[in-house]
Amino acid sequence: MKSSAELRRDALAIFHAGVRAVDPAEAITRHLRLDRERLQVDEASYDLSTFAGVYVIGAGKAAARMAQAVEEWLGGRLTAGIVNVKYGHATPLRIVGVHEGGHPVPDEAGVRGTEAIIALLRRTGQKDLVLCLLSGGGSALLPCPAEGITLADKQLTTQALMACGARIQEVNAVRKHISRIKGGRLARLASPSTLVSLILSDVVGDDLGSIASGPTAPDTSTFADCLGILKRYGVTDKVPCAVRAYLEQGAGGAKEETPKASDPAFARTQNVIIGSNIQSVRAAKEKADALGYHSLILSSFVEGEAREVAKVHAAIAREVRRTGHPVAAPACVISGGETTVTIRGRGTGGRNQEFALAAAVALDGLAGVVVLSGGTDGTDGPTDAAGALADGQSVSRALAMGLAAEEHLGENDSYRFFHQLGDLLITGPTFTNVMDLRLVLVG
Amino acid sequence: MKSSAELRRDALAIFHAGVRAVDPAEAITRHLRLDRERLQVDEASYDLSTFAGVYVIGAGKAAARMAQAVEEWLGGRLTAGIVNVKYGHATPLRIVGVHEGGHPVPDEAGVRGTEAIIALLRRTGQKDLVLCLLSGGGSALLPCPAEGITLADKQLTTQALMACGARIQEVNAVRKHISRIKGGRLARLASPSTLVSLILSDVVGDDLGSIASGPTAPDTSTFADCLGILKRYGVTDKVPCAVRAYLEQGAGGAKEETPKASDPAFARTQNVIIGSNIQSVRAAKEKADALGYHSLILSSFVEGEAREVAKVHAAIAREVRRTGHPVAAPACVISGGETTVTIRGRGTGGRNQEFALAAAVALDGLAGVVVLSGGTDGTDGPTDAAGALADGQSVSRALAMGLAAEEHLGENDSYRFFHQLGDLLITGPTFTNVMDLRLVLVG
Repeated sequence: MKSSAELRRDALAIFHAGVRAVDPAEAITRHLRLDRERLQVDEASYDLSTFAGVYVIGAGKAAARMAQAVEEWLGGRLTAGIVNVKYGHATPLRIVGVHEGGHPVPDEAGVRGTEAIIALLRRTGQKDLVLCLLSGGGSALLPCPAEGITLADKQLTTQALMACGARIQEVNAVRKHISRIKGGRLARLASPSTLVSLILSDVVGDDLGSIASGPTAPDTSTFADCLGILKRYGVTDKVPCAVRAYLEQGAGGAKEETPKASDPAFARTQNVIIGSNIQSVRAAKEKADALGYHSLILSSFVEGEAREVAKVHAAIAREVRRTGHPVAAPACVISGGETTVTIRGRGTGGRNQEFALAAAVALDGLAGVVVLSGGTDGTDGPTDAAGALADGQSVSRALAMGLAAEEHLGENDSYRFFHQLGDLLITGPTFTNVMDLRLVLVG
Repeated sequence: MKSSAELRRDALAIFHAGVRAVDPAEAITRHLRLDRERLQVDEASYDLSTFAGVYVIGAGKAAARMAQAVEEWLGGRLTAGIVNVKYGHATPLRIVGVHEGGHPVPDEAGVRGTEAIIALLRRTGQKDLVLCLLSGGGSALLPCPAEGITLADKQLTTQALMACGARIQEVNAVRKHISRIKGGRLARLASPSTLVSLILSDVVGDDLGSIASGPTAPDTSTFADCLGILKRYGVTDKVPCAVRAYLEQGAGGAKEETPKASDPAFARTQNVIIGSNIQSVRAAKEKADALGYHSLILSSFVEGEAREVAKVHAAIAREVRRTGHPVAAPACVISGGETTVTIRGRGTGGRNQEFALAAAVALDGLAGVVVLSGGTDGTDGPTDAAGALADGQSVSRALAMGLAAEEHLGENDSYRFFHQLGDLLITGPTFTNVMDLRLVLVG
């Protein structure tokens, strides 16, 4: 049986391998090829000599790093560019300008960055190539409400819908219809330029319409749908007047509908997912295999309440230990996706730390098992940690320090628990974002 | 890709194979051998010619069927016997008497059955062999509060502890100390007879002290622990006076402590788990393999909120469909254990039906996937169903009939949902009980 120290060291190595595989530079390198004047993007190819200008736009947590990689590939071929990133996420670039803005709550700085992108797109035309770099956080970092609607109006609308239990697809349908850029509108703004959108996915299932609210992907919802959604959840009178009026005008044909799949803008648009959770999960598996583990990819689609998802992972660890199912020890079970936390307490933490804490409780007393859960972006909730590590001794070690695991879990206070134990996973910003990686190692 | 009809048919066949493998008769046959006068129980062997009498006692949902199997094996060798079963679960036996009692809420009829068992044990001595048959429900079906404590007192104590968030191990510690039969006390009552306890496990992890509150297994908790538990949860003044007084007298040495592992009663006691969830899971896997599926045992330790556990299972189905992980299609992923439901709505259902409903929502639109969740005892919550089947079309089929899946889930109203769809799993009582089986089939 591998020691806990060995399992922890391996878990960290496997996690880092998973994150490295979705580094924007790595991801772009896998999908882009430049051979003299010929730019190959997956199966499509573009003759750069035929374009008057090559522009870069984008938004998201990884946008600056993605732009850096594009600069390395296309160097002097780039004409100009602007990307919007989260405060503190700017990196020095040679050609592409970087705007910082608010995330997760969008702000006026973000609006100004988005307006700069729109202004740049106004200058491009049929002879230009536009590379759009999208990643997680891109929705908040591309704020641009439709005419007559304020950022505050949009936020109130989102909150009203969320509070009534509307599904995220429904909230997004409304958001896309009161935006100048979401739901494919950015593609329309870029038209008639040729548009290549390079996308790092941070959503389960990699739906193009959901990543960053799909600025370069066709939308399937309509203004009429949006009014129906407001009605269904009884919030027609709860959303700001400007929003309701705008949607009603839209349904009446007085506002421009979001572009659908048949829109000519998409004839010259290529959307390419350059990195997603499953790639990170696969790289983690490769590393686990190389370290001698019997590894198993559980799923990259994992969603659900973090503490309950943790119980299922702990159950798998217990079965590996007892019967060697679903894989024999030394085993590494890997899952991806993104859990959620229903906040009931007053503590500090994040979904990955809460997962690790619930796993520690469920694994209490079991030897030779280590669990790691971390955000590939290097952050987990409003903390400086990416996640945490736990094992069957975490609960008793904590108890000896006067920390009751179940109380911390009850208070959603995973950060202080793991901080005291010295078991936080701290990576700093990784400049990528493909949701989470969870590892269960059984030695 | 296999059709949904084919997947459903296979899911039913796999479920039934899993249940059949833990039929009490089958389970007993795997562990008992009778060669003339020599009774072999696993590694132990008993010469029946040396015993004056061979008695059968027991309690639980499967007790009558287990007694029937023992009668078939030992026939005329049995002297007498009494088993306690749930109302309506009696089967005609030749030698062993059957008492019916209340379950899950114990009642006075159950107390009378238990007193009859105690009276029988008073008649047995050093020259007798006692076979004890335990299965799920055995705790409620062996009610016998300590002197001066009523059934109502016990129930109020349990409720007070549960309401304050006490863990099940803590609740059980208290229950064992105010019982005349739980926590190993039955083994002491049987002493100095030779005692062989044949146990069908309905608890995750198969802990002998937890199944039916461990009447024939050593206890590890003390009266002092119980007082500590009452204090920790601030319920010292909330439990009935008789219970508090009894525990205080016990801690002061005035009441007999539960027997510990070193107690002489256990020197002549053999506890044998004859059937458990993992056996059912393994039999399901064999059947799935035989039907041509790539099968995977996820875990028999699965616990957690049914709707969240369902999301993890759905996530696995989606990954199988997209990348062939963790197993390639046609795939059958099997899990066992027992989930829980936090009731927030006013509907009717059970943990298996709620799991299936949440899975239906999570799988909505996905083709070629069928999920089955069922209780191996043939009952799920206060319904006549064992569970339900769901697939990626359940939600839209229901919608066409005017049923909104998410509303039914919000109301914990899974029974009516699947009843209308015709997708309830109905088996009738199976006379066994090793928790649940969940199947995810991807064609």
